[in-house]
Amino acid sequence: MNDAFRPHAFADESLLQQALTHRSAGPRHNERLEFLGDALVNLIVAEALYRRWPKADEGALTRARAGLVCESALAVLARELHLGDRLALGPGELKSGGARRDSILADALEAVVAAIHLDAGFEACRAAVLPWFAAGIEALPAGKVGKDAKTRLQEWLQGRQRALPEYTLIEATGEEHDRSFKVACGVADPPLRAEGTGSSRRGAEQQAAAEMLRLLEAADD
Amino acid sequence: MNDAFRPHAFADESLLQQALTHRSAGPRHNERLEFLGDALVNLIVAEALYRRWPKADEGALTRARAGLVCESALAVLARELHLGDRLALGPGELKSGGARRDSILADALEAVVAAIHLDAGFEACRAAVLPWFAAGIEALPAGKVGKDAKTRLQEWLQGRQRALPEYTLIEATGEEHDRSFKVACGVADPPLRAEGTGSSRRGAEQQAAAEMLRLLEAADD
Repeated sequence: MNDAFRPHAFADESLLQQALTHRSAGPRHNERLEFLGDALVNLIVAEALYRRWPKADEGALTRARAGLVCESALAVLARELHLGDRLALGPGELKSGGARRDSILADALEAVVAAIHLDAGFEACRAAVLPWFAAGIEALPAGKVGKDAKTRLQEWLQGRQRALPEYTLIEATGEEHDRSFKVACGVADPPLRAEGTGSSRRGAEQQAAAEMLRLLEAADD
Repeated sequence: MNDAFRPHAFADESLLQQALTHRSAGPRHNERLEFLGDALVNLIVAEALYRRWPKADEGALTRARAGLVCESALAVLARELHLGDRLALGPGELKSGGARRDSILADALEAVVAAIHLDAGFEACRAAVLPWFAAGIEALPAGKVGKDAKTRLQEWLQGRQRALPEYTLIEATGEEHDRSFKVACGVADPPLRAEGTGSSRRGAEQQAAAEMLRLLEAADD
């Protein structure tokens, strides 16, 4: 029983039991807990990314989190934790192998997170849950989340042997203490143009580069 | 200055300043904080709904939260809190009335939530934020979030002068301690049929009713 699923020392074991009960197995099932657990996982991973990658912009953080908390990633964690062995499933789900299904495993894992939170509070929940995601957060490529938009755009283009972007100042307005800059970022292949504004020229360029990256990634899809 | 925006006694006032700085106004802006604050608001409201509406199913909780935390609802809160008066905007945004725009207000409010969390921790953040949503949570119609699926389906049909649903037991399998029921729920107008399974006949009926409600609401759109 070394591998038994014991994510937290529950004061109220019935919370864990409910979290591990699929709705096919009884009226006290884990769907409401899953609703709460989903929000907890999102926050715990958001905060960890925010602290670990102080230079990542909002878009990079959002994309990184989406990869870490998607159903398939949660199911992988649930399997590592041997959660499936503890699941309560109705006979139909049991017969059809529900304990191996990604959606059932991911939902149950989220429900367990909520159970810990209700049992012992947010701090205890975060302490129990964060280690599950630590390896995934550390493994994120710094080039994706840790670099600014101009650097990422440059690397994106270099990686595809395309010409580097050109930044052009379009407008500079305002008094010295309250300046506003508008910058255009242009690339040749495909011919695209993005604009950015900011209180510094560099800030405007960063915004234009981020917008250009979005355009290029959309065009590449 | 009675109406000044003071959501929390900050130990680190620079966090609040950053939260109130739009990206048009400088490099230390609120976009990363908004990413974190969005997750905090989602969790704080999710937990409040979970506790306040112990009979609401996951779908009802999800819909209720979506209404409470959407951009327009957050902008209304931001206006009640007079947050716009404190916003730092670039000259372009200032001129075009950015301080009155829903998206800028909602994003800044989320960023403020994150600033409180980073300043004082989750418990302090929840204590500061929950009152903003209390009225909205209390105002939710019990018929939407507090009732079970069979009741909601019945009321939905009665409200439209349509015939009530019929529940039919399709299958009952398993030993006494591990029974599984499959139930069909049928309505006449439009002719639709939904199935549910559960370890009790009532549980299977609830699941079938919830599915039927989804079908009817989709057909009604």
